Amino acid sequence: MWIYEKKLQYPVRVDTTNPTLAAMIIEQFGGADGELSAGIRYLTQRWTMPTNQAKGLLTDIGTEELAHWEIIGTLVWRLVKDATVEQIKGTPFEAHYVNHGKSPFPHNAAGSPWTATFINSKADPVADLHEDMAAEEKARATYEWLINISDDPGVTDTLRFLREREIVHFQRFGEALMIVQDELNRKKFY
Amino acid sequence: MWIYEKKLQYPVRVDTTNPTLAAMIIEQFGGADGELSAGIRYLTQRWTMPTNQAKGLLTDIGTEELAHWEIIGTLVWRLVKDATVEQIKGTPFEAHYVNHGKSPFPHNAAGSPWTATFINSKADPVADLHEDMAAEEKARATYEWLINISDDPGVTDTLRFLREREIVHFQRFGEALMIVQDELNRKKFY
Amino acid sequence: MWIYEKKLQYPVRVDTTNPTLAAMIIEQFGGADGELSAGIRYLTQRWTMPTNQAKGLLTDIGTEELAHWEIIGTLVWRLVKDATVEQIKGTPFEAHYVNHGKSPFPHNAAGSPWTATFINSKADPVADLHEDMAAEEKARATYEWLINISDDPGVTDTLRFLREREIVHFQRFGEALMIVQDELNRKKFY
Amino acid sequence: MWIYEKKLQYPVRVDTTNPTLAAMIIEQFGGADGELSAGIRYLTQRWTMPTNQAKGLLTDIGTEELAHWEIIGTLVWRLVKDATVEQIKGTPFEAHYVNHGKSPFPHNAAGSPWTATFINSKADPVADLHEDMAAEEKARATYEWLINISDDPGVTDTLRFLREREIVHFQRFGEALMIVQDELNRKKFY
Amino acid sequence: MWIYEKKLQYPVRVDTTNPTLAAMIIEQFGGADGELSAGIRYLTQRWTMPTNQAKGLLTDIGTEELAHWEIIGTLVWRLVKDATVEQIKGTPFEAHYVNHGKSPFPHNAAGSPWTATFINSKADPVADLHEDMAAEEKARATYEWLINISDDPGVTDTLRFLREREIVHFQRFGEALMIVQDELNRKKFY
Amino acid sequence: MWIYEKKLQYPVRVDTTNPTLAAMIIEQFGGADGELSAGIRYLTQRWTMPTNQAKGLLTDIGTEELAHWEIIGTLVWRLVKDATVEQIKGTPFEAHYVNHGKSPFPHNAAGSPWTATFINSKADPVADLHEDMAAEEKARATYEWLINISDDPGVTDTLRFLREREIVHFQRFGEALMIVQDELNRKKFY
Repeated sequence: MWIYEKKLQYPVRVDTTNPTLAAMIIEQFGGADGELSAGIRYLTQRWTMPTNQAKGLLTDIGTEELAHWEIIGTLVWRLVKDATVEQIKGTPFEAHYVNHGKSPFPHNAAGSPWTATFINSKADPVADLHEDMAAEEKARATYEWLINISDDPGVTDTLRFLREREIVHFQRFGEALMIVQDELNRKKFY
Repeated sequence: MWIYEKKLQYPVRVDTTNPTLAAMIIEQFGGADGELSAGIRYLTQRWTMPTNQAKGLLTDIGTEELAHWEIIGTLVWRLVKDATVEQIKGTPFEAHYVNHGKSPFPHNAAGSPWTATFINSKADPVADLHEDMAAEEKARATYEWLINISDDPGVTDTLRFLREREIVHFQRFGEALMIVQDELNRKKFY
Repeated sequence: MWIYEKKLQYPVRVDTTNPTLAAMIIEQFGGADGELSAGIRYLTQRWTMPTNQAKGLLTDIGTEELAHWEIIGTLVWRLVKDATVEQIKGTPFEAHYVNHGKSPFPHNAAGSPWTATFINSKADPVADLHEDMAAEEKARATYEWLINISDDPGVTDTLRFLREREIVHFQRFGEALMIVQDELNRKKFY
Repeated sequence: MWIYEKKLQYPVRVDTTNPTLAAMIIEQFGGADGELSAGIRYLTQRWTMPTNQAKGLLTDIGTEELAHWEIIGTLVWRLVKDATVEQIKGTPFEAHYVNHGKSPFPHNAAGSPWTATFINSKADPVADLHEDMAAEEKARATYEWLINISDDPGVTDTLRFLREREIVHFQRFGEALMIVQDELNRKKFY
Repeated sequence: MWIYEKKLQYPVRVDTTNPTLAAMIIEQFGGADGELSAGIRYLTQRWTMPTNQAKGLLTDIGTEELAHWEIIGTLVWRLVKDATVEQIKGTPFEAHYVNHGKSPFPHNAAGSPWTATFINSKADPVADLHEDMAAEEKARATYEWLINISDDPGVTDTLRFLREREIVHFQRFGEALMIVQDELNRKKFY
Repeated sequence: MWIYEKKLQYPVRVDTTNPTLAAMIIEQFGGADGELSAGIRYLTQRWTMPTNQAKGLLTDIGTEELAHWEIIGTLVWRLVKDATVEQIKGTPFEAHYVNHGKSPFPHNAAGSPWTATFINSKADPVADLHEDMAAEEKARATYEWLINISDDPGVTDTLRFLREREIVHFQRFGEALMIVQDELNRKKFY
């Protein structure tokens, strides 16, 4: 529907009205290892990277993560937009509803708000790229827990796509780390 | 029972023992747009207001909001005071109970604690009064979500009264904004 | 100037323009053991107290603490209201100024915002009254650190008055604890 | 240098090496009323807006705010990138440096990390647009405090440009509010 | 299983697979008055204590609390380790699971993360020991609420043991307070 | 002086009274990548590790990090214990002093309190060990920033020792990751 989504041209599919699942999926909208954490982290680490390639990689993946953040928001929204109040009552989405109605909001599945303490930027490219690889592994793990509890086939399919992207990002950060370490070693010797 | 309540002489009515509803109503005791946020915000903004009328308005409404905070606390308390442990188990109030027993506590419906980051005070009367008008609109919206899920007629009635007060406050802040803007314009020209 | 202040009829005295001191005094406006913590804590613990005397004591002291909160805000305000931007630059008040101008705000001297996690309410009168006694001791200690660094005689004098009040509150909570323990013991035996 | 910046084609100018100013400017990178708050807030509120025009407006302004977030990050970076450790020691940037080196990070001038509690999304378009108007007024006020303390002409010029944008956004949110209110009224009558 | 546990030689007993109970027990792993709060608080307060006996007491009890923290983690783990995903779905443990799988994590029963604002250290031994006595009373109260909702006999038994320890610690802090006060009085007079 | 310190038998050396340096060193007592984060993280991740060797490694390093946490606290304490109030005034330690006196406290150099959101535990050994390797790299980077600003030779020496330990831990976590990945692969094939 919006700019980020168009770029990926990936169909977001939701098959059920399911406030409980919405309340869990929101983990990746505002949780520790969710898409907002990823996007803000990578876009923040760019200034101190030593090569243009690494800056470009962080910009590309950071932007893609914000697009994924929008996909997650759309999953949450579609899972609740047709829900009646009676369907919401008694589910873990109820506590969200009395504050935010049916709007997504950047907190985790337990309702704890997103905080910049979820991420870091150390101005040390080796440390930052290790943080980024760890972030992708943690995001992958979160997608696996979510896939385990999902009982909506369309949502499961979308989550599988997003999990695959984290694995690709992990590999690309690993390659960047090797290049950056070579660059730093080269500087030491010449 | 206490000083603030006397001032309003408004009957607080609760018709059921209902821990789930208590866990939702607590949103207005310690949530983002609840009565504590309102009271602390207005009382904090007073020092930098440019007219005595605006200072007085913030004092009046800030004090009234603390009285409403007490009303909300009383709703929460009456909804749980006669509940057995078995009535609490399995409800969203259980997580509150293992920390605070049956006492109200300033966190939101998801159990996230009140924080001063919910409010601001900018020493800029135009910005502050816009923040206050927005706060009243957001508190009104919260009351509407709570009224939607309330299944206790007495609580619903009390929530309707409190929602009406937010609308009145919104209008009074709007009037104060016009007066402050006139005052600021007048100062520029003479 | 406002309602709370009138009740105490205590002169708030500030002798200097002193942004650095303002940045430190704000500890008691929004810090862990400051007046806001005290007021919100005691007013929150009232519902579950077992005797009317204990409820009344918490209401009285809680209300007095909010009045002290206003006194602290007034100290902060008077220490900065006549400061030029040049007097603020280079002081620890500068970080506060770029967000809040010269308005007080409920954060501590390091700029960390007030949070309800500073306080607790356990629905256990013995635990709550111990928490209250500890709170008064911690507030007293904070006043002593502030008096040590204050170089404004009027502020020092006001801080000494407020420190004395914490000692009185400590004693009154100690008496309430004895009465509550007697009451609880009496219930067990008859 | 990056995608967002290109869109605006606005020159970011920094004339000095100035860690103290960097430590203050960071308020708009990760503070309550900074560009990150604005971007995340508007992009989060889109799903529940009642008209495509309002959704589009939130997308446009939200994206622009993320571009401004990048401008602020670039100001911070350029103010410190050539600073020696001796130039950083004794300034308010030192506490930032021991954690993040010279990288920007989303916290405010006092070092308090960005939190989603700075923003809200209520699924009530009237409340949300009031929140947005207030946000723009508060961002404007913050820019004024920063302009007051800035002693770098290039930075001041960039801050003035950004302040102007907040005023434009405020007006556009005001127009959207009128259209949304008309739409909501129309729905009630037909 | 690990070092701390061996020291106490206390059997940790869990009789059921019970994700709901695990979600509540976690209050003492990462909640306001839990074992982590106790351990970090006492170990932090040691440097400024005036006597070696008080330093030693804080070290002993602080270390014991970290051992109890491990016991609580073991209770949480054993209550969920054999649970199927279907047994977790629909329970309050589900929000924990989508972030942390079956691993314990230091947040409270509502999922709010542990924060150092739960504790304080004032460099004033009288204030600190009062804080410690209050902490033990609040931990005792939490254990009582948890015992009330526990439906696993082994867990109940372990919780009773831990509650007893808090009572012993309370008494020991009371004795240390008397000794410290005597010491401080002695210093004043000689 | 205490148990942990004895284990390492490493001399903690401080050559100056230096409140500013104390205020920076505290980053490793309560900051994002400090010793408390490391200790709590590793001790929390133990239950879900797939091999006894990995559990043992996390226990060993977690315990060593708590010992390092004590070393950092001792550095902070010795840097301020002989400071007069006049030596503290005007330094970044002043904001700490008005709350905590001369006691260490788990917050970072900017005074932001320690929070469990600095760490994670995913019940996925590959993700957790990547998080641990990243944590060691980030801790190393922090030590480098601190060594850069340290002007106390004894403190610098101690920081260098602690930095070396992070490099050793990084390597050991890397080895554990390979073993765990082999173990996981082996399980898939047999």
